[in-house]
Amino acid sequence: MKKANKKANAAIVIIGNEILSGRTQDVNVVNISKWLNPLGVRLEEVRVIPDKEDIIIKTINEIRKKFTYIFTTGGIGPTHDDITSQSIAKAFNVSYGYHKEAYKILEKYYGKGKFNEGRKKMAKLPDKAKLIFNPSSTAPGFIIDNVYCLPGVPSILKSMLGGLKNKIVGGKKILSKTINLRTVESEIALSLKKIQNKFNTVEIGSYPFFKQGKIGVSIVIRSTEEDLISDCYKDIENFVKKKNIIVV
Amino acid sequence: MKKANKKANAAIVIIGNEILSGRTQDVNVVNISKWLNPLGVRLEEVRVIPDKEDIIIKTINEIRKKFTYIFTTGGIGPTHDDITSQSIAKAFNVSYGYHKEAYKILEKYYGKGKFNEGRKKMAKLPDKAKLIFNPSSTAPGFIIDNVYCLPGVPSILKSMLGGLKNKIVGGKKILSKTINLRTVESEIALSLKKIQNKFNTVEIGSYPFFKQGKIGVSIVIRSTEEDLISDCYKDIENFVKKKNIIVV
Repeated sequence: MKKANKKANAAIVIIGNEILSGRTQDVNVVNISKWLNPLGVRLEEVRVIPDKEDIIIKTINEIRKKFTYIFTTGGIGPTHDDITSQSIAKAFNVSYGYHKEAYKILEKYYGKGKFNEGRKKMAKLPDKAKLIFNPSSTAPGFIIDNVYCLPGVPSILKSMLGGLKNKIVGGKKILSKTINLRTVESEIALSLKKIQNKFNTVEIGSYPFFKQGKIGVSIVIRSTEEDLISDCYKDIENFVKKKNIIVV
Repeated sequence: MKKANKKANAAIVIIGNEILSGRTQDVNVVNISKWLNPLGVRLEEVRVIPDKEDIIIKTINEIRKKFTYIFTTGGIGPTHDDITSQSIAKAFNVSYGYHKEAYKILEKYYGKGKFNEGRKKMAKLPDKAKLIFNPSSTAPGFIIDNVYCLPGVPSILKSMLGGLKNKIVGGKKILSKTINLRTVESEIALSLKKIQNKFNTVEIGSYPFFKQGKIGVSIVIRSTEEDLISDCYKDIENFVKKKNIIVV
């Protein structure tokens, strides 16, 4: 059994002009984060950067030293604006070229006659990269050191996460419990603050919402310790009762 | 008339555990970016960071020197986890306390009897901050130097952007034109690459899509120069015709 890594954390680097230009709504952060929580890996930073080699290199080299796992999304396709693989190779100062296994997988999938230059480009990876299996569209992602490079298309990315699970060593599952109240934040701010001070290792978040014309506040308690969440929840329930706030 | 700032760029700093935990899907990036494009300001980086003072201070101080405009979202509400204002004050090394104008606005809105501690907290800002008017829920955002602090709730944030327009000095509008093709990226990669090399100041993006069970590729051309977009578009149309690719 792998030894748990209590302090395992992660960052996501989204590589894509289309996110920065407002053309595309990112959804990969939510998907990766929700996948990491039960693995006991805390997502601690996200960066969105353009398809520019110097920026990719600088960002990866800065961030890979700060977090246990780095996930990149985007830029591993066949077109001219897909420059993640060669940029990551430069970041690690390794050569970039055909990856035997990736080449075989792609050649088999497309057939020799249809294995054109664009498709061959997807077999070019940093030297010694390990492949991430792609059950939807074949072109693999790759791992180099602690950097996991995934595609930008959300459905394809999601299909690849399953096969990655056994490569991630995290700590205890990150658990959360939510209580939704028919109130406004300023009415409960003081009580919540006191509870946060009492449970200083628990993460208590307060988020206003508007649903079907009604306002309310979601209180989210997050911790790896079920007991702490439960105790904290009880304290919240107590002040909620005292203040006659409706739970929705 | 204000002098245009051709090189105006921007970064967004999203302050919020709820985005990192996967609980909340961010939509503010798309909204701010789409608002910046016609103002001629290019969004060049996004960071998502947790509600932690030391990280907010470090990130703001690093990023505010690199970009013309910084927009922060989140953390300016009344609860304990709203720590943007005091963290920004520390980043700028200025005092943090009641802002006269903000205090008046909020006191008037809530009425003296209901102006409790949580609500008063929203009147505490970094010294000399200028207010950003909030037409939805009153609690103002603020500007200090080139840092524009906005709330995290998307509808409120959006309502505040209108009043900010005249404070942003950008360059030429960033224009874009899209052509959707019934093809796969690897079939057009080579032709697109040639066009990108010819039009090296134009940003050509290629994005696969899946719609109603059919696959295709969106090609997005982006530039401040309408002529260049038009010329580039014509070249794309030419190879599309030659290759008998259907435009959808």
